[in-house]
Amino acid sequence: MAGKIGFIGLGIMGKPMAKNLMKHGHELCVYNRTQAKAKELVEEGAVLCETPAQVAARCDIIFLIVSDAPDVKAVLEGENGILNALRPGAVVVDMSSINPNASREFYQTVKAHGGSYMDAPVSGGEQGAIDGKLTIMVGGDDADFDRVKDLLLCMGRVAVHVGGIGSGNVTKCANQIITASNLAAVGEALTFAAKAGVDPRKVYDAIKGGMAQSAMFDSKFEKIIGRDFKPGFKLDLNIKDLKNVLSAAQAFGTPVTLTTDCYEMMMMLIQQGLGQDDNCSIVKYYEQCAGTEVKEVQ
Amino acid sequence: MAGKIGFIGLGIMGKPMAKNLMKHGHELCVYNRTQAKAKELVEEGAVLCETPAQVAARCDIIFLIVSDAPDVKAVLEGENGILNALRPGAVVVDMSSINPNASREFYQTVKAHGGSYMDAPVSGGEQGAIDGKLTIMVGGDDADFDRVKDLLLCMGRVAVHVGGIGSGNVTKCANQIITASNLAAVGEALTFAAKAGVDPRKVYDAIKGGMAQSAMFDSKFEKIIGRDFKPGFKLDLNIKDLKNVLSAAQAFGTPVTLTTDCYEMMMMLIQQGLGQDDNCSIVKYYEQCAGTEVKEVQ
Repeated sequence: MAGKIGFIGLGIMGKPMAKNLMKHGHELCVYNRTQAKAKELVEEGAVLCETPAQVAARCDIIFLIVSDAPDVKAVLEGENGILNALRPGAVVVDMSSINPNASREFYQTVKAHGGSYMDAPVSGGEQGAIDGKLTIMVGGDDADFDRVKDLLLCMGRVAVHVGGIGSGNVTKCANQIITASNLAAVGEALTFAAKAGVDPRKVYDAIKGGMAQSAMFDSKFEKIIGRDFKPGFKLDLNIKDLKNVLSAAQAFGTPVTLTTDCYEMMMMLIQQGLGQDDNCSIVKYYEQCAGTEVKEVQ
Repeated sequence: MAGKIGFIGLGIMGKPMAKNLMKHGHELCVYNRTQAKAKELVEEGAVLCETPAQVAARCDIIFLIVSDAPDVKAVLEGENGILNALRPGAVVVDMSSINPNASREFYQTVKAHGGSYMDAPVSGGEQGAIDGKLTIMVGGDDADFDRVKDLLLCMGRVAVHVGGIGSGNVTKCANQIITASNLAAVGEALTFAAKAGVDPRKVYDAIKGGMAQSAMFDSKFEKIIGRDFKPGFKLDLNIKDLKNVLSAAQAFGTPVTLTTDCYEMMMMLIQQGLGQDDNCSIVKYYEQCAGTEVKEVQ
């Protein structure tokens, strides 16, 4: 065992990820803003810390998964943040999905404090986190990746070292561009069929095995036609990722035509109070324009 | 053997489709505007007709695959068109990809002449046509479908009776909405990665097995990163399908947000002289906006 491991952020994703590290025999020092969420892990043997600085004081490897860049910044640079107590040579592995440019800035800051920093966002959702089957997209220095790879594989099915710092979040952005667009395309096609008076299920049956096949089509079709909008992956979270895509795209100078459409569709639905619905409710944008509903023809 | 079968339109798709009918033992009467293209089939035993009317005079089942609705109209209603010699109770199976509203109009016209009409567009491309592995999406009356199903299965892996007349082309439109959008999304994501300085191949490797997976991503990634824009499915043909989607969508009153973007991207590339390139060259729209190229980092 390589000493204690830090884990900061015990939300829907972080808690099962931390548990999987413990299942593999690692001793954890944990911190969460809402301390109650750490209770279960502490009962299983994790050391509860009262600040990120306390975690940093005890650990050479610190995992971190919070909502967005301002939260990462607070954990790192806040009053009782990691940088107040960073051990020389310690590595912070930020598994949050944030703007890749923010990752690049945090890397510089942590380096200047004598440690190192990686971005390692995940995909696979809550179930993937519970099952230890996440896809982990890693950006950072080679030596740091070698140091943390086995730990990442306690939480993920695969950990791909994509490139230097920021590459993890660039890859996550690419993933979110494709998944949002593919999902909107499904909504666009099924609404087209429904408005034309054709049974969306028969359309799906006819085209699902061909070039229109996608993981999003396969995984969301039954939810859409069954009018089941329980999350899954909430619009409120999906739009946060798309915001990061849009702001990063502007900074890089690259077009995000379809993602911009998807972002605006989600904005409208969130304004309508649907932010807690699954992201497949993007079909409701199309349905509202068309004045129809995607459902099975009996 | 149920008498002679008509086949009109011996282009890239029609010729191998007709061949597959002959391979299954069916005798064909064939017509093509450019007669020379019929030569090979005639040498194999097909009866060459000089007009669509001559085909209609001899056959109770007539397959038809031409470019777009005006071509179908000419074959049906032109000077020497099918309707001049339609046998009572004959069925015209139009396998062209056209606006579903045009299919609905042709159905009415053929019915008024004592025959019947179905729309049965295909997907699967030239290779699918050669291999007899097309997906055939069929709209029309139940009795007509029963009559032609076995013949369709000489040409296709599957023939799905989606619904009444027009349903075949509605399904084809749904397929084209999804395939174009999924392909553009791949271009958007890979250009984003390239502009951010991240190797697109590593991005693909990291996300291809997850929710970003699609048949388009799987089938076009190597072409894009290998800068291989030989068709495949040409932009010139793809944009014709998208035109049909847009005009049908306007008639039905349903939004086609992403498809409209894809259509405009393809318009630009066609103006640049790229109409004969594979549709995966849609990535060049993104690359031109970003001033970068999606290629492997050595």
